[in-house]
Amino acid sequence: MIIVMQTGAGKEALAEVKKRIKELGYKPHVIHGTTRNVIGAIGDERGKSVLQSLESMPGVESVVPILKPYKLASKEVRPEPSAIEIAPGLSVGGDKLVVMAGPCSVESEEQIVETAHKVKAAGATVLRGGAFKPRTSPYSFQGMEEDGLKLLALAREESGLPIVTEVVNPRDVDLVAKYADIMQVGARNVQNFALLKMLGQLDKPILLKRGMATTIQEFLMSAEYILSEGNQRVMLCERGIRTFETATRNTLDISAVPVLKEQTHLPVIIDPSHATGHASLVPSMCYASVAAGCDGLIVEIHPTPETATSDGPQSLRPEEFAAMMQKLAEFAKVTGKKL
Amino acid sequence: MIIVMQTGAGKEALAEVKKRIKELGYKPHVIHGTTRNVIGAIGDERGKSVLQSLESMPGVESVVPILKPYKLASKEVRPEPSAIEIAPGLSVGGDKLVVMAGPCSVESEEQIVETAHKVKAAGATVLRGGAFKPRTSPYSFQGMEEDGLKLLALAREESGLPIVTEVVNPRDVDLVAKYADIMQVGARNVQNFALLKMLGQLDKPILLKRGMATTIQEFLMSAEYILSEGNQRVMLCERGIRTFETATRNTLDISAVPVLKEQTHLPVIIDPSHATGHASLVPSMCYASVAAGCDGLIVEIHPTPETATSDGPQSLRPEEFAAMMQKLAEFAKVTGKKL
Amino acid sequence: MIIVMQTGAGKEALAEVKKRIKELGYKPHVIHGTTRNVIGAIGDERGKSVLQSLESMPGVESVVPILKPYKLASKEVRPEPSAIEIAPGLSVGGDKLVVMAGPCSVESEEQIVETAHKVKAAGATVLRGGAFKPRTSPYSFQGMEEDGLKLLALAREESGLPIVTEVVNPRDVDLVAKYADIMQVGARNVQNFALLKMLGQLDKPILLKRGMATTIQEFLMSAEYILSEGNQRVMLCERGIRTFETATRNTLDISAVPVLKEQTHLPVIIDPSHATGHASLVPSMCYASVAAGCDGLIVEIHPTPETATSDGPQSLRPEEFAAMMQKLAEFAKVTGKKL
Amino acid sequence: MIIVMQTGAGKEALAEVKKRIKELGYKPHVIHGTTRNVIGAIGDERGKSVLQSLESMPGVESVVPILKPYKLASKEVRPEPSAIEIAPGLSVGGDKLVVMAGPCSVESEEQIVETAHKVKAAGATVLRGGAFKPRTSPYSFQGMEEDGLKLLALAREESGLPIVTEVVNPRDVDLVAKYADIMQVGARNVQNFALLKMLGQLDKPILLKRGMATTIQEFLMSAEYILSEGNQRVMLCERGIRTFETATRNTLDISAVPVLKEQTHLPVIIDPSHATGHASLVPSMCYASVAAGCDGLIVEIHPTPETATSDGPQSLRPEEFAAMMQKLAEFAKVTGKKL
Repeated sequence: MIIVMQTGAGKEALAEVKKRIKELGYKPHVIHGTTRNVIGAIGDERGKSVLQSLESMPGVESVVPILKPYKLASKEVRPEPSAIEIAPGLSVGGDKLVVMAGPCSVESEEQIVETAHKVKAAGATVLRGGAFKPRTSPYSFQGMEEDGLKLLALAREESGLPIVTEVVNPRDVDLVAKYADIMQVGARNVQNFALLKMLGQLDKPILLKRGMATTIQEFLMSAEYILSEGNQRVMLCERGIRTFETATRNTLDISAVPVLKEQTHLPVIIDPSHATGHASLVPSMCYASVAAGCDGLIVEIHPTPETATSDGPQSLRPEEFAAMMQKLAEFAKVTGKKL
Repeated sequence: MIIVMQTGAGKEALAEVKKRIKELGYKPHVIHGTTRNVIGAIGDERGKSVLQSLESMPGVESVVPILKPYKLASKEVRPEPSAIEIAPGLSVGGDKLVVMAGPCSVESEEQIVETAHKVKAAGATVLRGGAFKPRTSPYSFQGMEEDGLKLLALAREESGLPIVTEVVNPRDVDLVAKYADIMQVGARNVQNFALLKMLGQLDKPILLKRGMATTIQEFLMSAEYILSEGNQRVMLCERGIRTFETATRNTLDISAVPVLKEQTHLPVIIDPSHATGHASLVPSMCYASVAAGCDGLIVEIHPTPETATSDGPQSLRPEEFAAMMQKLAEFAKVTGKKL
Repeated sequence: MIIVMQTGAGKEALAEVKKRIKELGYKPHVIHGTTRNVIGAIGDERGKSVLQSLESMPGVESVVPILKPYKLASKEVRPEPSAIEIAPGLSVGGDKLVVMAGPCSVESEEQIVETAHKVKAAGATVLRGGAFKPRTSPYSFQGMEEDGLKLLALAREESGLPIVTEVVNPRDVDLVAKYADIMQVGARNVQNFALLKMLGQLDKPILLKRGMATTIQEFLMSAEYILSEGNQRVMLCERGIRTFETATRNTLDISAVPVLKEQTHLPVIIDPSHATGHASLVPSMCYASVAAGCDGLIVEIHPTPETATSDGPQSLRPEEFAAMMQKLAEFAKVTGKKL
Repeated sequence: MIIVMQTGAGKEALAEVKKRIKELGYKPHVIHGTTRNVIGAIGDERGKSVLQSLESMPGVESVVPILKPYKLASKEVRPEPSAIEIAPGLSVGGDKLVVMAGPCSVESEEQIVETAHKVKAAGATVLRGGAFKPRTSPYSFQGMEEDGLKLLALAREESGLPIVTEVVNPRDVDLVAKYADIMQVGARNVQNFALLKMLGQLDKPILLKRGMATTIQEFLMSAEYILSEGNQRVMLCERGIRTFETATRNTLDISAVPVLKEQTHLPVIIDPSHATGHASLVPSMCYASVAAGCDGLIVEIHPTPETATSDGPQSLRPEEFAAMMQKLAEFAKVTGKKL
């Protein structure tokens, strides 16, 4: 940490801050500047947010952290990218571009099985589908719950695709884990730390979505919650952040791909469906994401979007998805990845 | 809902959309415009998000909701402000301005009891204190948990102040409810719908904080989750939204006070401590909030902010709080409220 | 500036950075940390943005500024608040709360003269009115231009109120200065540096509006452009920032009042009309702004908002304004200011 | 426009609104809903912002625009993409991907001529360089002004590359036009309407940058200012928007590419340098932009970024640029464009 003293702060204030830094187990190092003094507090500042409280001491103007607050997610711990096995013979984070596709909500056996076959035929290697749906309105369809999980398992059996589905309540972790190959944490739960800790004790890969207003640093701290409990199989998913722009549902922060690649070894997935909110924008955002260097995509597909119980406007039809996948393969090839 | 057709969309597309509107139980009403047609779908659109999926039909440009999606939170259901009893003889939402004050985290018996006495002496009528702390970092202090709840109960006994404290995990609802007078939902859990539903079944007042990126409408929908389960005692708490500005921790959206007052009968509380992140900014934001017409405040106080385990920089010292309360009483008087 | 080296950056990289710091006229001071090194560059860093370019050197992770980049606007130069004379006997920044009121656009003699009389009767001491209107659409009414300025001058003569009006083009500075008592810079021109420099050479008070996405620090840098050209009479006007929230036109950043009061000696004015976009929200935001400690308000008033050529929805009717002013006087009194 | 009446608004209020709609030259069409009435105002609403003022009438809840407010920029006027000639034999918007490259600021003859040769060798077809620099601080380097323009002209002569440079003051339009092949409007001037109108009267292509907080719709309205004055050669440039995220200087809104492609015929350019602020992030954002379907890029290059007078941290070295261009060609090929 760097502690910036106020202009005009006297010797006593400086001495008090130095004393307090020592009490907290750090070594103070003062730089006497031309208009003000600055103190470096030497030592590992992670987990010691109490240093921030020095801001309340007389003569202190601000406290500036220097170290990144995460450890296990950082490239300092593991400089090479992590390849995470999500199903036998299928890893995310290597030279395979993994595409997860399927409907927002599981609605019926016919819907999910038909979709599974079609997305597999188009080249997807994971089936997505929601059984527990966190909806803004209590009056909206809340998902088929365990019945939906059973239909997903059936679709897996029929198609051979592993399944990813969301868990929203710590109480349901065991239930969802009984069916899912990959456990998804939705954007609204990115700082549901109770849920994250439970998932950290699981032996299943986790797809962790960034929240609408989560900074990259906070996002990595949420991953750290899972990693620090022991589960090392975490995939990070950017799905759009909330900005002033209303032409899209959210703003896809595609620069999060190279930023995360610089800071962490964990694989990065992009969700262009929730990011844009409009099916017509999804293919070009898939191409862009792959060109930016992501490790995978998660895309919403529905056989008949105009009847979908949720997220119809952002769902591709299977034939649109198939056409997109063909072009995607060409972009992937340029990056050295294959579908 | 208003369905806006594309310029040049033909008769068939229009007929298909009209047909689908009828299938969904609405009455279509077409306005033939000079460059495009617009269809009103007459009927109660709330909870029928499936109408939004019409956006996927050929010829449709956009679907624009008209009705507010919440019911029980709205002034249409209850035009007069709700006064919510939070302790015997103490209501929020009437002519009493309720000030809740105390430390971010409960740290020790001495700390919480001393603070309770001091905030009471200054005019606070509720004691706040965190026992379960949702922290961005897994390495930060996570709260004293049940031990913290016990200390809060002790401080209540000593001071006579009712207590408000946060619950973060649906699993802990019963535990926290055993000690707390008011259950607080933190900003990160504003869309933790599993938690909201459980709190909706409780016979306790709820302090629901707005999330960092929650719109007013989404905020009211979260309140609706609690209300629709039966619990009518919901207080809405604005605590700053996330913007580009970094001079403050968040940006206090003080216009949320009159906006909420126009749209809902529920009381509105302001948290200036989390909004600003700096103790020196707290008093003026308290004055502004009261002048804007809020029903209460929740303020962080710590006997020695420079040693606080969390949120030290934004905590007022007891004597600063006492000075602030004196001036606050004068502002409250102008609004017709009393401390 | 603090230069943070990467973990593992070698001695040579450190030596190169130190050498470059010296070349730029600063004194390097190294702190050897536990996991990385940090270099303080001692010297006045203001105006020396080239230091930021050290970020491109091998081994450098980031460059963190410590000093505030503005000088003349800072409290270090002038610790006491500046009271700025805007008309004979009328100053902003002292114990008088100055209310500027009038229509968004000057539309006719009748409209502006009638409004001038009415706002004066209600207690306003400055008349606002736009003659040059920066409009988002080229097809919208662009203002009456010099004819509008003449009508403003007429209204001043009739009412005795000094006038504030916007200048949008450097070319028009002399023309507007011929009529206006206070020159207004609109939110869209907050970084129109050519305009700011010209206004810095004028002997007229300037009302500088914050832009929709301007940080407090950038806002003060824009003021610095005017101050550094010689004109010390600058008033800062917060008028809402752009956020994700759509219930209001912008989000009024009322915490900007105490933040600015900590950082600058310049007076702070609030514009609740553009901030909220809805007349019904304006009075409570006026009360809040005064309670927060602002030095003045600028409010849109129109005799018949439903026929206004611009900004009708956010304009108060004269009788609503008069009612608001009565209550405002009570709030002002608590702050020690008078209307 | 759709005028939404309040629940409970009576017949008289409805009649008054209908009357006023007619007075304004529109045809009212009422839809009687289950809980409230809605009125469509039929007619071309563009440029008639006065309709918005109906919001001030009794009984009106809100006024919702339906039509897009721009005309000449829309695909309704010109459904096919516009190819804009920027130099003899060089067009933007067709099957050629145009890369503009060069330093942020022109600093010396050697710097700009060397850079011109190097970026040309790497495949760039336009040279960028700033002579008038809008800088946040009045104490920062403000550009070489006309001397810089002369050096740009020299570099053009030496390299054969046409030049793009920024104009910041309406007064300088003729001066800059004397030297530049393409006139650039910076992000801070996107709503400097006086400048836009002058550029609309010029016979030069314009590169119009989106502002930090400009919506897509406002961006197109700014283009409309230029188009409506007669100049049809407008290129739209996305350069990052301001959000809460601080890991990047701004957030590149790459979905703006397909959104703009749906709404306008004008070509779309991406500036990844200002968007990200860090050179290491620039190549992947170039790839992503091309994959998303942009028509061109504008990239900052500096022979020695660590000595740059401005924007060093985001400038690529010439050899980094050359390597990036090779890979870019492969991505462009997939999209059917060539470098």
